[in-house]
Amino acid sequence: MTLSVQKALEARSATNFFDASKTITDEQINELVRLATLAPTAFNLQNWHFVAVKSDSAKQKLLSAAYGQKKVVDASVTFIVCGEIESHKNFDRVAKILVERGGVSEADAEVWKGKVNAVHENNPSIQKAEAFRSASLGSMALMLAAEELGFASGPMSGFDPAAVSAAFDLPETRIPVMLIAVGYEAEGNYAQQPRLDVSEVLDIV
Amino acid sequence: MTLSVQKALEARSATNFFDASKTITDEQINELVRLATLAPTAFNLQNWHFVAVKSDSAKQKLLSAAYGQKKVVDASVTFIVCGEIESHKNFDRVAKILVERGGVSEADAEVWKGKVNAVHENNPSIQKAEAFRSASLGSMALMLAAEELGFASGPMSGFDPAAVSAAFDLPETRIPVMLIAVGYEAEGNYAQQPRLDVSEVLDIV
Repeated sequence: MTLSVQKALEARSATNFFDASKTITDEQINELVRLATLAPTAFNLQNWHFVAVKSDSAKQKLLSAAYGQKKVVDASVTFIVCGEIESHKNFDRVAKILVERGGVSEADAEVWKGKVNAVHENNPSIQKAEAFRSASLGSMALMLAAEELGFASGPMSGFDPAAVSAAFDLPETRIPVMLIAVGYEAEGNYAQQPRLDVSEVLDIV
Repeated sequence: MTLSVQKALEARSATNFFDASKTITDEQINELVRLATLAPTAFNLQNWHFVAVKSDSAKQKLLSAAYGQKKVVDASVTFIVCGEIESHKNFDRVAKILVERGGVSEADAEVWKGKVNAVHENNPSIQKAEAFRSASLGSMALMLAAEELGFASGPMSGFDPAAVSAAFDLPETRIPVMLIAVGYEAEGNYAQQPRLDVSEVLDIV
């Protein structure tokens, strides 16, 4: 099944009620994350990490960290989309694939790494901003990919980040930015809510 | 022209060189922002604002605030995608359309508004996180919509937010989160850069 970008944007709505009897395969989870990571990141830093909460026991742990929102139990999977604040320290893994598969010379990859470090090192404010940007860009890509693959999705920013980190033993450098429940719709969901007129949120200068 | 979500994700790359002779219409800018705002926001807060920098004089102002990145001049338009940190104070405009067009009762819209205020009021950390999330989600939707409409896009997080705010007289509550150049490709751009294997950025639990 394919869906145009416009149709996916118009069809997507924040699903609250999921069919708890439906499951998702690891292959489908992998494909959703593969597509999500086609979103851009600054310097191709790929400063994100995805935890797919799929097992019953993991869902129970997430439930209390997500203020009891039942969709994290009923959805087939809930992604904890994290931003990494110290990805610059791990840039060699990106440099490696830039050289191996991206047509970038080793010398250029070194220059690239130098720029990454110059911007990120000792700059917690930039690190955190980039973590939020990258994780959110990836989250939108994931939701649209889910729509195309026939899934409903329910994004959440209402959760306790510290409780999520503790429940899943996340390293301190891995910041949970969004939760996205993915699965099959049950009855009772709202349609997409209305948007403000474009004129209210746009200035052309 | 339509493009599947997957094809749009795979075709999009960070465009650096744009054809400076090509223009975009205000109608096209409006349509891009309409599609961008179909991205979700917490509570449907719509805590974003888009400044479309299209005129030569506005582009020159943006150029220096964007560290001289020439694409902001060569692209047909560059969007300053902003997050709003005090949208909760302006929730009545959303409540109005929820009632008028979203099938929400006035009483429910009041409850909704109460929840928004409970979460956001006097909570600058949440306000800022939501501003970054919403603006980034909208940015990803805008880039994919641009791809489908035949445009190339170049996202930037490397700019001086204070200088952007000053150059465009942004209110203090309006935070520039990303710049997105949109236009037509010139020669010399990289293809999409390679991504890490999914196994490096995903845990299934």
